[in-house]
Amino acid sequence: MVHKGKKFYFCGSIRGGRQLASDYQRIIKMLKLHGQVLTEHLGDDQEIETKDRMLTDVQIHDRDMDWIRESDLVVAEVTIPSLGVGYEIGRAIELGKPVLSLFRTGAGYTLSAMISGSEGVTLLAYNNLEELSVQIGDFITVRSTSL
Amino acid sequence: MVHKGKKFYFCGSIRGGRQLASDYQRIIKMLKLHGQVLTEHLGDDQEIETKDRMLTDVQIHDRDMDWIRESDLVVAEVTIPSLGVGYEIGRAIELGKPVLSLFRTGAGYTLSAMISGSEGVTLLAYNNLEELSVQIGDFITVRSTSL
Repeated sequence: MVHKGKKFYFCGSIRGGRQLASDYQRIIKMLKLHGQVLTEHLGDDQEIETKDRMLTDVQIHDRDMDWIRESDLVVAEVTIPSLGVGYEIGRAIELGKPVLSLFRTGAGYTLSAMISGSEGVTLLAYNNLEELSVQIGDFITVRSTSL
Repeated sequence: MVHKGKKFYFCGSIRGGRQLASDYQRIIKMLKLHGQVLTEHLGDDQEIETKDRMLTDVQIHDRDMDWIRESDLVVAEVTIPSLGVGYEIGRAIELGKPVLSLFRTGAGYTLSAMISGSEGVTLLAYNNLEELSVQIGDFITVRSTSL
């Protein structure tokens, strides 16, 4: 089932480390099967550079906050610790937005208790991207009426 | 000037990495000159273990959120990227709490635009802890009437 009207805010680590950038790119593609991704540039260093280089940090922050407000669902890849991702999840929860967090198991990271213990966050732990693709599809299909 | 009545919520990276734990301990001592630190255990791995090991992640999350609500000022050490610290800053801002972020320059980290660009965050960049101690004292003294 495709829900083209839904808007997703995807976030992953930028300044915290880009080791999983190619995974972010694949996840963005998965999300695009189900709707619009407001932060499509997030998977590509070159596109981040192009999009953000003329902006101050305040402008980046305010644009991202506007996109969060506009979105139906915040999807956060939380494997690599990132202040920005944590911040966005915290603000999204207070704004009443549903938050889906994606955590890759077996990659040597331990997830923060503030994410795994947050009632406002749905957590998907995944072993590989193929498995994740199915999990994301199931989540969006089941939740599509409430998003 | 000492403001013993003020309550501070201090946060720094836990599961994101403990490389700066001894700095957190020193910062907690600085804050205690000006009031009460609700998260005094944060500087000591053994105390974190003692305090948190009987708790689920939900209990840790909810206790920390209660402390944030109770605090007059959230002080976040933001040098090491941390999902939990970012999350707490985001929630604190939406709750209308003042947030003071501390970033050590020259340690090889780049601060997230979501923190440096957030209007709700006062940022102190510091080179060493001696300098930081003075900066924190000045901030709390100047802001003490509004905290």
